[in-house]
Amino acid sequence: MTGTLYGIGTGPGDPELVTRKAWRIVSEAQVIAYPSAEGTGSFARSIMAEAISPDAVEIEMPVPMVSGRAPAQSIYESGAATIRQHLEAGRDVAVLCEGDPLFYGSFMYVLARLRDDFTTMVIPGVTSMTACASAHRQALVARNDTLVVIPATLDDETIRDRIAMAEAAVIMKLGRHLPRLKFLLDGMGLTGKALFVSHASLPHENATPLAEAPEEAPYFSMIIIYKGADPWI
Amino acid sequence: MTGTLYGIGTGPGDPELVTRKAWRIVSEAQVIAYPSAEGTGSFARSIMAEAISPDAVEIEMPVPMVSGRAPAQSIYESGAATIRQHLEAGRDVAVLCEGDPLFYGSFMYVLARLRDDFTTMVIPGVTSMTACASAHRQALVARNDTLVVIPATLDDETIRDRIAMAEAAVIMKLGRHLPRLKFLLDGMGLTGKALFVSHASLPHENATPLAEAPEEAPYFSMIIIYKGADPWI
Repeated sequence: MTGTLYGIGTGPGDPELVTRKAWRIVSEAQVIAYPSAEGTGSFARSIMAEAISPDAVEIEMPVPMVSGRAPAQSIYESGAATIRQHLEAGRDVAVLCEGDPLFYGSFMYVLARLRDDFTTMVIPGVTSMTACASAHRQALVARNDTLVVIPATLDDETIRDRIAMAEAAVIMKLGRHLPRLKFLLDGMGLTGKALFVSHASLPHENATPLAEAPEEAPYFSMIIIYKGADPWI
Repeated sequence: MTGTLYGIGTGPGDPELVTRKAWRIVSEAQVIAYPSAEGTGSFARSIMAEAISPDAVEIEMPVPMVSGRAPAQSIYESGAATIRQHLEAGRDVAVLCEGDPLFYGSFMYVLARLRDDFTTMVIPGVTSMTACASAHRQALVARNDTLVVIPATLDDETIRDRIAMAEAAVIMKLGRHLPRLKFLLDGMGLTGKALFVSHASLPHENATPLAEAPEEAPYFSMIIIYKGADPWI
């Protein structure tokens, strides 16, 4: 009997925004795996810290903060190989992933390497996107609106075109791109309709109109834009 | 002291996919409110049934299944008036909403009428969108991809244009539109890249390639499309 591979969405940051199912599976798991970033450790593990059994084996995947795909993929390759050994020995493995595992999540790199060989279950999580709308208490998308979700890493023209064809837009992974995006959105006349959020659902959450956003944004921050008038009355 | 208004995301359907925070707040709430549909009752209430206190006051908002905005808005108007009385009397009110309250959620209609007058908190939930990706164990969106979320109610040309400008697409609220969308996606050469899901996370979940989808789809079903090759290795 081989073990089951679980992809666990840990939600946006508040440990209470973890689903009951994710909490239970992680509490019961004999083996836990998670990516970590140099210097800041594993955000996903910090969210689940209270659920993890002191007896659990932990597999850390230290993802290097360098450009190019190869260095990170090398880490997921060796992480997946270690996870494979536990699964073959009959132990369940829970892989932690902030937000949702399949929404810009790193779990997909582990999943792609193991899903054909083992029973796999994915537990969806609350995305940072809806946590940011919650922080502002404003609808993200309504009725017959189209929503477009765009990484800030794309070029100006692509971002402009994609925002133009939807009623609502989310720009993810801001980081160092924030000043450029502020300028871009101002040129589109959208500053007044744009909201900024960093660290959604955490004690240091910052939710402001885009015009009042800080100069420097962390990677885990985003802009949400609603272009229509309030359509919900 | 007035009460607090809570918008509660109940997730896609499995009661275990409710967040710990939503479960706690609903367990403690003196007053619960929810929309219901004629004949089928309240899906959001059914998800939370085990959490609701037998002593809680319940406010049902029976949303009529007719076209036009006015009949439904009339129900939200009178529901909000009843909720207002409880908040003014100092009682907290938890409004249940399937999925996430601000992602095509009905909570926004209550929120718009009360947020200026009362302390309001929104508890985000797992959306059906990521639950559908989980059902197929396939990444919804990765790396620098753009995702577009489109209601099936839009016309063919609009849907075609919006799918064309993103790497990944979700078509929500299928219902009677499924045959039309199958034909449309076939014409775009996307049938082989399209997945169908109904009743995500429930015991009768149906997750199939679009080509094998049933002729009749429920309202709570969707198509997810990934246009690229697997980008996650």
